[in-house]
Amino acid sequence: MYPLDVPAIRIFEVGPRDGLQNEATPVPTEAKAAFVRSLAAAGLAEIEATSFVSPKWVPQLGDAQALLAELGPMPGLSALVPNAKGLERALETTIGRIAVFTAASNAFTLKNIGMDVEASLAAFAEVIGGFRAARLDGWVRGYVSTAFECPYAGRIAPDHVAKVCDRLLDLGVDEISLGDTIGVAVPAEVRSLASSLTHIPKAKVAWHFHDTRGTAIANVAAALELGYNVFDASAGGLGGCPYAPGAGGNLATEDLVYFLERSGLETGVDLGALARASLPVLDRLGRKPAAKAQLAALAG
Amino acid sequence: MYPLDVPAIRIFEVGPRDGLQNEATPVPTEAKAAFVRSLAAAGLAEIEATSFVSPKWVPQLGDAQALLAELGPMPGLSALVPNAKGLERALETTIGRIAVFTAASNAFTLKNIGMDVEASLAAFAEVIGGFRAARLDGWVRGYVSTAFECPYAGRIAPDHVAKVCDRLLDLGVDEISLGDTIGVAVPAEVRSLASSLTHIPKAKVAWHFHDTRGTAIANVAAALELGYNVFDASAGGLGGCPYAPGAGGNLATEDLVYFLERSGLETGVDLGALARASLPVLDRLGRKPAAKAQLAALAG
Repeated sequence: MYPLDVPAIRIFEVGPRDGLQNEATPVPTEAKAAFVRSLAAAGLAEIEATSFVSPKWVPQLGDAQALLAELGPMPGLSALVPNAKGLERALETTIGRIAVFTAASNAFTLKNIGMDVEASLAAFAEVIGGFRAARLDGWVRGYVSTAFECPYAGRIAPDHVAKVCDRLLDLGVDEISLGDTIGVAVPAEVRSLASSLTHIPKAKVAWHFHDTRGTAIANVAAALELGYNVFDASAGGLGGCPYAPGAGGNLATEDLVYFLERSGLETGVDLGALARASLPVLDRLGRKPAAKAQLAALAG
Repeated sequence: MYPLDVPAIRIFEVGPRDGLQNEATPVPTEAKAAFVRSLAAAGLAEIEATSFVSPKWVPQLGDAQALLAELGPMPGLSALVPNAKGLERALETTIGRIAVFTAASNAFTLKNIGMDVEASLAAFAEVIGGFRAARLDGWVRGYVSTAFECPYAGRIAPDHVAKVCDRLLDLGVDEISLGDTIGVAVPAEVRSLASSLTHIPKAKVAWHFHDTRGTAIANVAAALELGYNVFDASAGGLGGCPYAPGAGGNLATEDLVYFLERSGLETGVDLGALARASLPVLDRLGRKPAAKAQLAALAG
């Protein structure tokens, strides 16, 4: 049903970072730590816990150092590191995995991080070099946002995305994560983008789909059929809800786990435990659970 | 990207019937008529408007005759007809398209219509015969519910589903609609079921997916890739919300139209008009719009 050479599925959980970074309601450090621990206990092996972006810009994650101290060393934990200043703070913790964040569209990076893609890559060279020097067995992920379409520049050509990926790989990232940032892509676009990435080992490419228009699982299915095995998701669908609670930005990890397990692909995740993991945080944010497979698991 | 022999897509809108049949809040006949007219104005050519089930059992649709009188003749309008008594009422209207409703699981039909599958088929012989005699150019659809899994009997073997389909086709239905009633199926199951239906012309098979666990669009994509072209959906995702508002039972027509159009397949539907079509009914039901592509279209 899926290519026999699909290696074990890897789910990259981004809820604690991507899910909380835009929330108006502050979540205390201990509550975040409990969230991360619940996710790990549910079987998620890779969790992006926080970001070392300036607390001035994202106060929600300003407690990155405190959170990582509270959590202690965990093998699959990672954090976003946007620049040299962030790296300084990151290296004061035990974090062994970091991520840098650029996009396939200059219009998007200019609006979001105040520099064009080229400038962001130059900054990453310093971050990645510094991290590698300090953490010999460190692991680095590179996000490529707006890999299908940019809200300001429109559709992005797959060959252009491939060039940004190549630059990141040249800088030494271990993995690329391709983001459908505004949640518009359909399987045909996944196949089209993948056809421009055939020179990159599939195990080095993660797919970060948003479910804003209900297409995320179809896109995961398309990527799986092409032999890809790494998918980002956010517990409870936290984060990136541009329109309304329940509308969906990030693909819910529950929907991803349900789909994979029902398709006969093992994830190692306990869906019931996962469905409950985000409840305390959702409650703090004044939200009801809204992810589909989460609701089904909670009801079942 | 999709098989070249995929004929024009047909969307079978079930919101006015499937979406309203379980609602506690009554919707006045004129509001239903306005809903149907808005759906047609948005470009939906086939709309299941109501059901001639006994008003004792489903009072929500007890105004079937009044609704069809209010609407007047519309070529793509259809109604569910469960039995001879329902047919009598249907034939007092101008309706030219009817549907009968059985399942692939005895446990399900016994619980829902008080007879086993065999008995339901026997009843349909009379309904279909009577309808054909009265409407020489009439069109008949046969629903096969629980085509993947039954909430009482568990997974259903594809070969068993095929047998029920064959019986319905022998009775003279023009089209089968295969229902993932509890919203559990994944693309691998769609392919598995389709492989048991290769003897049935694809144009005679509609797929009725529920999005309870977020897999509906992935299933549509899988069926499309196999060459199927008829899909059921409900505007605003109305109906079949077993867990919570927004959880999703029926696949939202908005999600379906977005996915198809973005995939380069024409639907003839105006997504913006469709997204607005269910708002007055949702408002009467005290619900906010929750279908993903609907929210995106309303925000855009």
